[in-house]
Amino acid sequence: MKIGILGGGQLGRMFIQNALNYDDEFHVLDPNSDCSCAYISHFSQGNFNNYEDVLAFGQDKDVISIEIEHVNVDALFELEKQGKKVIPNAEIIKTIQQKILQKEFYKKHNIPSPDFEIFDGTSDEIKIKFPFVQKLNTGGYDGKGVQIIKNAEDLKNLWTEDSVLENLVDIDKELSIIIAKNENGETKTFPVTEMVADEKLNLLDFNICPADISSEVQSQIDAIAEKFIKAANSAGLFAIELFLDKNGKVWVNETAPRLHNSGHQTQEGNANSQFEQFYRTLKNLPLADTDAFGFSGMLNLVGEQNYSGKVKYEGLEEVLKLPKTYVHLYGKTETKPGRKMGHINVLANSREELLEKLNYIKTLVRVIS
Amino acid sequence: MKIGILGGGQLGRMFIQNALNYDDEFHVLDPNSDCSCAYISHFSQGNFNNYEDVLAFGQDKDVISIEIEHVNVDALFELEKQGKKVIPNAEIIKTIQQKILQKEFYKKHNIPSPDFEIFDGTSDEIKIKFPFVQKLNTGGYDGKGVQIIKNAEDLKNLWTEDSVLENLVDIDKELSIIIAKNENGETKTFPVTEMVADEKLNLLDFNICPADISSEVQSQIDAIAEKFIKAANSAGLFAIELFLDKNGKVWVNETAPRLHNSGHQTQEGNANSQFEQFYRTLKNLPLADTDAFGFSGMLNLVGEQNYSGKVKYEGLEEVLKLPKTYVHLYGKTETKPGRKMGHINVLANSREELLEKLNYIKTLVRVIS
Repeated sequence: MKIGILGGGQLGRMFIQNALNYDDEFHVLDPNSDCSCAYISHFSQGNFNNYEDVLAFGQDKDVISIEIEHVNVDALFELEKQGKKVIPNAEIIKTIQQKILQKEFYKKHNIPSPDFEIFDGTSDEIKIKFPFVQKLNTGGYDGKGVQIIKNAEDLKNLWTEDSVLENLVDIDKELSIIIAKNENGETKTFPVTEMVADEKLNLLDFNICPADISSEVQSQIDAIAEKFIKAANSAGLFAIELFLDKNGKVWVNETAPRLHNSGHQTQEGNANSQFEQFYRTLKNLPLADTDAFGFSGMLNLVGEQNYSGKVKYEGLEEVLKLPKTYVHLYGKTETKPGRKMGHINVLANSREELLEKLNYIKTLVRVIS
Repeated sequence: MKIGILGGGQLGRMFIQNALNYDDEFHVLDPNSDCSCAYISHFSQGNFNNYEDVLAFGQDKDVISIEIEHVNVDALFELEKQGKKVIPNAEIIKTIQQKILQKEFYKKHNIPSPDFEIFDGTSDEIKIKFPFVQKLNTGGYDGKGVQIIKNAEDLKNLWTEDSVLENLVDIDKELSIIIAKNENGETKTFPVTEMVADEKLNLLDFNICPADISSEVQSQIDAIAEKFIKAANSAGLFAIELFLDKNGKVWVNETAPRLHNSGHQTQEGNANSQFEQFYRTLKNLPLADTDAFGFSGMLNLVGEQNYSGKVKYEGLEEVLKLPKTYVHLYGKTETKPGRKMGHINVLANSREELLEKLNYIKTLVRVIS
């Protein structure tokens, strides 16, 4: 089967890596001829935000999918009209692309998400109470396009673009659940994962799986995942990012209609990874078992501040000596501050052992140039 | 690092698949522009048996290795002379390529291997007793180039080429141990695996890991692996195929200086796979832990008799429904009788469960056209 992926970054790379278990052809559209997927796929140089490029790319593919949601969705609608299979479908990608539509989707389908108001960038009649979060309607990614407005004084920093202003949740934990659905309607979730952010970079720092949550919280999350996948009305793999607040209530922060950083530890931590599951949704195959093998976690390898240029990984050899520790680099030659360059997965027999290992590894490795 | 591999078959493919965890460039030399590695590497079309082709291919590589042992070894000696890194080294590849040299190597280093005599293809003074095994000096592969001569009548079938005639072992089990060594001299073995052959095809049918052997047999095997790796005097990954005879004695059948079919279940069955370990030998990295996660096994997917042409896998969807079961196809478009097209790995909690699963899967899948 000819599988076409919009975007050639690390998610596409790890997807192809896993899907080499099967006999398909992988085609990738990316503007960067040196991207992470360039040498392991049939590569087309082009802009996945450009209508013509996406339309042309999709013509001879059996299925078209994405590894980044910021793609030209009009072209995807047109491909669907032509009878092409697009997974996830254009409608849900469009909904998720635009924060305003995404928030309205949650509201409409009774999926708990923080209260919000729509801001057109010019209004000075803001009703929402301080502190609140401003999320740009489009273009946000990896912590970009999101800011907290604490008080009236902060209002001067307000971006003057279409955006969502939403209540700030008093966060106890950030959680994620990954759910997949195939065209036959079969669905399967991965165990809930705890995401620990790097506050300086506003970027995922590490994952802990399974999350330390009560069965009551688990039930809230299961209900959210079920509602979401029903409402989305699309095959595909989705990562629902959640807040657990200090009163024990779960809120949807946002959803990614694709493979997600919060599922990387499934590569070695679960019977099958998110990459395998995504493959199965693209081919409408029986979904894979997602059982966790004990405790697993992931540490992101992010370009250190003040280093740009040809990447060097300091301390990686020490990491390779550790048992049940797995290095995953993304084939990126150039580092820059905050750039995701790779990650390290770890298996452990307890949460304590896991955190100890992750924290120890963090002291060993530096991504410099 | 520029890693050059002679041969672009499934072993190379699974090696590259695993090594996509790191930031190297993979280059492959193979005569077939549609080989398993063609689209996932920097591909050079050429003959790995041709002196000029191998020499040219090696020029700009940081390390040169093999995924098949039938390569032009003179070119590898020349590359070494030029200061190139060749792993495993040309000397041990040459020794293993030629059954006569290989048998003499075992004898010289006191490694138990069945008694033998050298046959030049014309002599009629055969001293060895019936039944015996004839192994062609060169060109044997995957059960080809080996035959059993049971009695005087069979002598008419004797190949008239340089070969080894060796005592037929009264086999209780066929076993394999995979051992790796890096340039720092660190060595590590994988757990011993039982290989069950398909008698009709004289080809590996399935693996069972760990092997059901006594600690005394384990000690014999450990001693053999230790002697072998010392005598080989080369970094690299080696698979030593063994016979356990009915008196409890272990004999070396033959050794492969490369990744091996008897190690495929390490992909999901062990903390790290043979592919990861091989990578580490090529880059002189700390060797990976090889602990087994319970019981694991592998079933080869081999082209069915009477089917040639565009491959179809019957029953694969049923297999994908089974928990802890992993399909690995080799990206080969054409099947033919006996061709290795893929394999299926299985995890289990006991040997009985493992055998049950493997046998059940065998009833589900057929490789046809």
